[in-house]
Amino acid sequence: MRYCMGVDVGGTSVKLGLFETEGKLLDKWEIPTRKENHGEQILPDVAASILEKLEERKIRRKDVAGVGMGIPAPVDSEGVVQQTANVGWGYKEVTRELSELLDGMRVEAGNDANVAAMGEMWLGAGRGEKNVVMVTLGTGVGGGVIVNGHMIVGQHGAGGEIGHICVNREEEDACGCGLHGCLEQYASATGIAKLARKALSGEHEETVLHGEPSAKDVFDAVKAGDALATRIADEFGRYLGAALASLAVVVDPAVFVIGGGVSKAGPVLIPFVEKEFQKRAFFANKDTKIVLAELGNDAGICGAARLILN
Amino acid sequence: MRYCMGVDVGGTSVKLGLFETEGKLLDKWEIPTRKENHGEQILPDVAASILEKLEERKIRRKDVAGVGMGIPAPVDSEGVVQQTANVGWGYKEVTRELSELLDGMRVEAGNDANVAAMGEMWLGAGRGEKNVVMVTLGTGVGGGVIVNGHMIVGQHGAGGEIGHICVNREEEDACGCGLHGCLEQYASATGIAKLARKALSGEHEETVLHGEPSAKDVFDAVKAGDALATRIADEFGRYLGAALASLAVVVDPAVFVIGGGVSKAGPVLIPFVEKEFQKRAFFANKDTKIVLAELGNDAGICGAARLILN
Repeated sequence: MRYCMGVDVGGTSVKLGLFETEGKLLDKWEIPTRKENHGEQILPDVAASILEKLEERKIRRKDVAGVGMGIPAPVDSEGVVQQTANVGWGYKEVTRELSELLDGMRVEAGNDANVAAMGEMWLGAGRGEKNVVMVTLGTGVGGGVIVNGHMIVGQHGAGGEIGHICVNREEEDACGCGLHGCLEQYASATGIAKLARKALSGEHEETVLHGEPSAKDVFDAVKAGDALATRIADEFGRYLGAALASLAVVVDPAVFVIGGGVSKAGPVLIPFVEKEFQKRAFFANKDTKIVLAELGNDAGICGAARLILN
Repeated sequence: MRYCMGVDVGGTSVKLGLFETEGKLLDKWEIPTRKENHGEQILPDVAASILEKLEERKIRRKDVAGVGMGIPAPVDSEGVVQQTANVGWGYKEVTRELSELLDGMRVEAGNDANVAAMGEMWLGAGRGEKNVVMVTLGTGVGGGVIVNGHMIVGQHGAGGEIGHICVNREEEDACGCGLHGCLEQYASATGIAKLARKALSGEHEETVLHGEPSAKDVFDAVKAGDALATRIADEFGRYLGAALASLAVVVDPAVFVIGGGVSKAGPVLIPFVEKEFQKRAFFANKDTKIVLAELGNDAGICGAARLILN
């Protein structure tokens, strides 16, 4: 079969992509996420949009291997979600419902962070590898762990919840999840901003940072050679590098892919992470690469489509 | 096919087991590990012993699905080891060589700690589950991570090296691997003995412990209600429980299986681990079970045989 499709369900819009099974993205588009009435129109809208695209491109149904879908919630191995607050869903048998709307076409689904990792493995920074860990540094810290080409979903759909690895047993402030010392408290955009606030509140050297700097402000200042910003980035790197070292002895990936909003700072952030990783990595993991994500917002549709090829 | 065989290669003896593919252990036996000349006789000895057993039991070759093998070294996904100091091997294409000695019979191989985890999943404390993490508390700390019924081998065969998760960033003493603060430094038999030595060297309450107590002495004293021993067990539990909580957010198992020599202390050690795990576990992982291994020395042959059923 020549084609597969990827769907990335988000709180504002649903992104869709049409791919050749060899990995060429032929077309991508978006439709609005209609969240009203518990999001009951979302899957029918997706189905209609897919059928319309196939019609428009004169692609026969039998040439489509299936539709993969990324969802902003844990998805179990049967394709069921318990609740997806962002789009209004309660309990929903997502793959069964979409498949019925598409006359029995094969449908697969996964958590959006895991699916993004599949995307980077297939067409992005993890191309050619089968063991990939993606770390998404956004408002929070998410992640996806790919082992031998398959996502780790886990018993409760919590596989790859990398942001809640404990990296500081002494932390007194609580993470959003209620725990203390989670990676997310130091390596998310919010966490970096908090590291910056703390650094500015104590005695410190002269700095271009002031007020309440964002993660972007911090890395911009690092690029400009600012010493305080460099110290903040060091602290970020120490926590993230240590977490990657602990991850490495458990799942032993070929490559760590760093994505999410914070990663837009660019290559400047890699050495901060690499330094601590090299210090703390088990000898067998020392050559594991740490690289920036390449697909940006397309990671979701790419990874979703890739689900169909397993 | 009705039968499969499991082989557990150790430094002193090779254990072998004959199983029905439904999981019944029909026979188990041992042969010495002949390590001389870089262990060149080990695989021929194994092959001869297998063929003899099939002959003895009048089992036809075509009724045997294959032979699985656990090896005390990293084994890559092609069944190759780079070096196996314990048995004298250098680079060796283990599965290919044994398969040739058995006239092309299917052979699979894995690291012994990973294979033991497969065994506990198939016939032991993880029965009925597909997502299992086994932690082996012996002289060191080893482990095996099973996701969806498959071992995580990893890019360098280092998957499941749980003993080298960092649980104490402040540790000044080095682990055998050269890193600082590895789980192995606190949760292995050696690690627990060291915690005991440190506790005894400072000021402390009256205790039945004295001299250089072993891990077994510590847990025996805990059973007898000794307060100092209970504090040592608490410390052990804090490190192991925290490591399991971090593992849980990454691979999200249904159950943690605790094995190895230290686990012979019995059910007494579970609450010490459980307490810290509950304190540090991500909400989705709170119901993950922590149980003792059930198969003892048979875990290796069981898990090796199970490799053939994937």
